[in-house]
Amino acid sequence: MTVLVLTCEEDVTADMVVSVLDDAGVPVVRLDPADLPGQVALSAEYVRGDFDGHLSAGGRVVSMSGLRSVWVRRPGRPAARAAHESAWLTAEAEQALYGTLNCTGVRWMNHPAAAAQARWKPWQLRVAHRSGFAVPPTLITGFPRVAREFAAQYPDLVVKPVSGAHPGDPALALPTTPVGPDADFDAVTAGPTLLQQRVPKRADIRLTCVGDELFAARRASDPDEVDWRFTDNGGAWAPAEVPTRIAKAVGAYMSLAQLAYGAFDFAEDGDGTWWFLECNQGGQFGFVQLETGQPIAEAVAAWLALGPAV
Amino acid sequence: MTVLVLTCEEDVTADMVVSVLDDAGVPVVRLDPADLPGQVALSAEYVRGDFDGHLSAGGRVVSMSGLRSVWVRRPGRPAARAAHESAWLTAEAEQALYGTLNCTGVRWMNHPAAAAQARWKPWQLRVAHRSGFAVPPTLITGFPRVAREFAAQYPDLVVKPVSGAHPGDPALALPTTPVGPDADFDAVTAGPTLLQQRVPKRADIRLTCVGDELFAARRASDPDEVDWRFTDNGGAWAPAEVPTRIAKAVGAYMSLAQLAYGAFDFAEDGDGTWWFLECNQGGQFGFVQLETGQPIAEAVAAWLALGPAV
Repeated sequence: MTVLVLTCEEDVTADMVVSVLDDAGVPVVRLDPADLPGQVALSAEYVRGDFDGHLSAGGRVVSMSGLRSVWVRRPGRPAARAAHESAWLTAEAEQALYGTLNCTGVRWMNHPAAAAQARWKPWQLRVAHRSGFAVPPTLITGFPRVAREFAAQYPDLVVKPVSGAHPGDPALALPTTPVGPDADFDAVTAGPTLLQQRVPKRADIRLTCVGDELFAARRASDPDEVDWRFTDNGGAWAPAEVPTRIAKAVGAYMSLAQLAYGAFDFAEDGDGTWWFLECNQGGQFGFVQLETGQPIAEAVAAWLALGPAV
Repeated sequence: MTVLVLTCEEDVTADMVVSVLDDAGVPVVRLDPADLPGQVALSAEYVRGDFDGHLSAGGRVVSMSGLRSVWVRRPGRPAARAAHESAWLTAEAEQALYGTLNCTGVRWMNHPAAAAQARWKPWQLRVAHRSGFAVPPTLITGFPRVAREFAAQYPDLVVKPVSGAHPGDPALALPTTPVGPDADFDAVTAGPTLLQQRVPKRADIRLTCVGDELFAARRASDPDEVDWRFTDNGGAWAPAEVPTRIAKAVGAYMSLAQLAYGAFDFAEDGDGTWWFLECNQGGQFGFVQLETGQPIAEAVAAWLALGPAV
């Protein structure tokens, strides 16, 4: 039984996990959908109710029924490196690869349908509420009057993208930014705008959830720092204990969202409360493992290796 | 309680359903996501666990908690008609609209996650098998040898797109086409290719499923006709009885796929067997209703109107 890793060529995080699996003697096939067709090929037959599929990559052939799990890490766009690349070929290759993998009963980290659902950020806030997290009061609006009323109620605000990253090439992440109550809220008519009460934080928390295992890391924060992804305050990530209430809420969230992997971001306030900011179903963990020594790659490998013995 | 219809401006099929809802006195808001921001605006607040959302379109404001159902018909790309249209604005508007609607407990025809899953054509074949349909032997392959072996076993083959429509502008539907056993199967290395045993058919069947209601239509077929979407044999669609076995299989398919609406295409062979070809979760029904007089728009309206009284 083989672990299938879908990711691009240069992926140090995948390297870490594959190396653990190799050491444990678990067979791994790693491929980039960008190489289908080309270095990667597949075949699937549907005859009299039976389904039988095969994948070939780097000279190795693996049966789809022989897959133990699929890790969707950072896969390239299907057919991106094909000799005659086109939107049509991408659609065909994408259907062929993910459509046939969807026919297997394999365990996914994460299943594409759950991953797609988990990318809806407004939905994340709702699921976070329902899971028992503290969530900062948040408004998404295209109405200036509503924005002004919200700013009057919560004068210390930040604005952040609703969707995450700007789809430029390369994609552009936009930092969360403070907004004063005297801002020109008429501009929200130009596009739905996400305003959130700023959490007066003393630390940032990154909690990585792998199946049932939780790894929390904490980094002290400058009072004026808003978005740690865009600053370097010299602080280091250190392992943190997970409060029982948070562990329960993470379990509820993962179950509601049907995720096997999630990277949660929290802001810790002066009272020690962890405020939910977001859960990235495809979030990085390499930098946490490097700074904290937490065995996250090992946990991912163990989750992927679960299932029928080799 | 209001029905929300997401579709483009020119949509005769939506007109049919909205007119039934209007006659029944069921409130309807119809909007095109292409008009967000602009003619359409929204606002959603997350405060202390409560979620409250509003949509405004054409001067009407509707509360998201006051929605009875959402019909995702033919929605335009979010922000497509915005004053400053961009990929970034589309991402933001899409997140804001679908992300907040996802926070409601509303009934969807169809839920976006189910719709996305149902678009995987290879997955459809597997679900069809599991639901109890007869499915023609099918191969999806990038290996010439495998294609040749399949053609030797099933000499009367058709080739069709794995993904459905060519993503040109306008999109280009590619007809299902016969392939002789002496075809040059080396070409399958250029892209995963779907080969299927040709069903010697005497009729085409279009079965429209709306909730629990089934509407089957039958059209006699020329022996040489392969794809009715691209021919006009002069025959008309007429209502057809649904065999019990098919009704059961449709129910199983809709339940496995978590769909509220599906348009099934079958080929009827000389023995009267209906062979599953595909299920389009967003398939048209207007032409069937016009030719057969079957009250499909009425069934869609009734499904959308179900739920708390006005």
